[in-house]
Amino acid sequence: MSRSLNLAVIPGDGIGTEVVTEGLKVLDAVLAGTDVKVGATTYDLGAKRWHATGETLPDTVLEELRGHDAILLGAVGDPDVPSGVLERGLLLRLRFELDHYVNLRPSRLFPGVATPLSSPGEVDFVVVREGTEGPYVGNGGALRVGTPQEVANEVSVNTAFGVERVVRDAFARAQARPRRKLTYVHKHNVLVHAGHLWRRTVERVGQEYPDVAVDYLHVDAATIFFVTDPGRFDVIVTDNLFGDILTDLAAAITGGIGLAASGNVNPDRTAPSMFEPVHGSAPDIAGQGVADPTATVLSVGLLLDHLGLSEQAGRIVDAVAADLSERGTAARRTAEVGDALAARVTG
Amino acid sequence: MSRSLNLAVIPGDGIGTEVVTEGLKVLDAVLAGTDVKVGATTYDLGAKRWHATGETLPDTVLEELRGHDAILLGAVGDPDVPSGVLERGLLLRLRFELDHYVNLRPSRLFPGVATPLSSPGEVDFVVVREGTEGPYVGNGGALRVGTPQEVANEVSVNTAFGVERVVRDAFARAQARPRRKLTYVHKHNVLVHAGHLWRRTVERVGQEYPDVAVDYLHVDAATIFFVTDPGRFDVIVTDNLFGDILTDLAAAITGGIGLAASGNVNPDRTAPSMFEPVHGSAPDIAGQGVADPTATVLSVGLLLDHLGLSEQAGRIVDAVAADLSERGTAARRTAEVGDALAARVTG
Ligand SMILES: CC(C)[C@H](C(=O)O)[C@@H](O)C(=O)O
Ligand SMILES: CC(C)[C@H](C(=O)O)[C@@H](O)C(=O)O
Repeated sequence: MSRSLNLAVIPGDGIGTEVVTEGLKVLDAVLAGTDVKVGATTYDLGAKRWHATGETLPDTVLEELRGHDAILLGAVGDPDVPSGVLERGLLLRLRFELDHYVNLRPSRLFPGVATPLSSPGEVDFVVVREGTEGPYVGNGGALRVGTPQEVANEVSVNTAFGVERVVRDAFARAQARPRRKLTYVHKHNVLVHAGHLWRRTVERVGQEYPDVAVDYLHVDAATIFFVTDPGRFDVIVTDNLFGDILTDLAAAITGGIGLAASGNVNPDRTAPSMFEPVHGSAPDIAGQGVADPTATVLSVGLLLDHLGLSEQAGRIVDAVAADLSERGTAARRTAEVGDALAARVTG
Repeated sequence: MSRSLNLAVIPGDGIGTEVVTEGLKVLDAVLAGTDVKVGATTYDLGAKRWHATGETLPDTVLEELRGHDAILLGAVGDPDVPSGVLERGLLLRLRFELDHYVNLRPSRLFPGVATPLSSPGEVDFVVVREGTEGPYVGNGGALRVGTPQEVANEVSVNTAFGVERVVRDAFARAQARPRRKLTYVHKHNVLVHAGHLWRRTVERVGQEYPDVAVDYLHVDAATIFFVTDPGRFDVIVTDNLFGDILTDLAAAITGGIGLAASGNVNPDRTAPSMFEPVHGSAPDIAGQGVADPTATVLSVGLLLDHLGLSEQAGRIVDAVAADLSERGTAARRTAEVGDALAARVTG
């Protein structure tokens, strides 16, 4: 008897296709000898398709994607696509349609990795970023565009339903980690309506997790601690926009977005979750075979973990840790890094 | 003949009163021997007043404040005031009522100052944060509060009028600096309505400043450069919330909020501008005479510069730079730092 992992792959544009090749290579390697057989279907979405057809995410493709166990995405975009088209029409649409309410972004400073901080200490935290609400909902609008009387609004929508489910997820993750600490980040002294909903929700749900220590930081103060004392964080839960900002900063202090993995997770499994590196399509280095596939490989690790294959997920993290600690300064090609990681996970 | 500087002083709570004393000491010292006479009226606003009377900013006080040339504020708040009361009722109300549309926050890494970055390079930039629009307008609301059906919205309001005036101010500041570089920061790939208003405005106004080099960063990417290459920034212009977040991070990389000064500026001079340290009332160290008054003294420098006393403003910055470079590690008391800076500005 064998199990099949029915994977949708969206390589996308630029280095997206290059790093996804390595991600799949490592996935095959880590599953070799198990009873899991990977079947991957590639979907052509992103800037190339938009230039050719004007389509971002046709409904029929969305329906096909729903039929898979998980999605692996490389990166989409190029400088000739107007800002917002692929972000709102493809990336965010997937997160909203597939109800990816947990945007999971672990940050770990692996030994041997360069950081801009002079004394970072041990850094190992995970940001649980809300993925389906907040200022990302696309509920803005503009009036008298292009005139001196223009008004452009953006509405952040936050619901008890949406906040509670992501806060619950974060508490559960915090409880499963050795330090059992949850920091929630908002700006409730200014954004009083949304902020107080977050606050009340954390306080209420927290009563069910008496063994998890909770603290709060305003988002501005949180950025200070990211550079002065990142070791203080264990699990962070925050809204969609704050999470976007904080996770780029988190990536910067732990070696850059070239190493940052993410999972757009639907914890209720009513639709497939999607895993992607935090970096973009990097047109400047695309096609040269020099992109670092590590973030994609780590994203494959998150994918395996989400599917319950935690032993294999752990092997990926260990392989990356070992590779990074021995990496040295010599530049390696994309495929070389993938080969090295594939060799380590089978080893 | 002498000129009079008619100053309103809001010492506030906690260390606010302590640092303001030193700020005024240095102000007197730097103006000694000039034809400017300072008259200071103290206003009792903040947590103490709120506890005693329930008032945050009575209309009569606001009207009195309008009659001054400038306002110096220490810090307000204590842990027993509910979140949002003094922020929305006092601090933000002042910014909105007095039309402080330029929230000016310089960041400079002075020689001798400890930074969490291992190789920061030369850091000397100023953030022009919009102060009267964006998510700070208080146009949110909540429905069915406390029920599982609660919806809490926050509306970011952005107008052509509001964006253009702050962008113009930032261009003028960039043009007056040696590097002539302006970076605007937003998130126009997601917040498409507000973001595109900012973008079109910067592009249009920029045509009047052909000698200013302009670039754009998404707010998440901007945080990366703050820690990997802060020297790339000269003038940054951004919205109210992004500016709040970025300036705390900017303070963190240049020695902490204990050194960060700010001006809430009304460039049209239709109402007094207000100057304040970025830090808060720090109840944990209040009353001990150990708070660092440097941020307040630098805010006094911004005040003088705003009033056209740029020579005196320059002497304050020079005094702080000299003091910081010789500070060493021995802890000094609040008054000792004030005395040292007062002596230097007269020297
Ligand atoms: C590309 C953009 C829509 C996206 C976001 O803002 O969420 C990106 O910055 C990210 O963090 O995944
Ligand atoms: C206290 C708060 C309202 C304020 C802000 O958010 O603007 C503070 O963080 C600041 O940066 O001056």
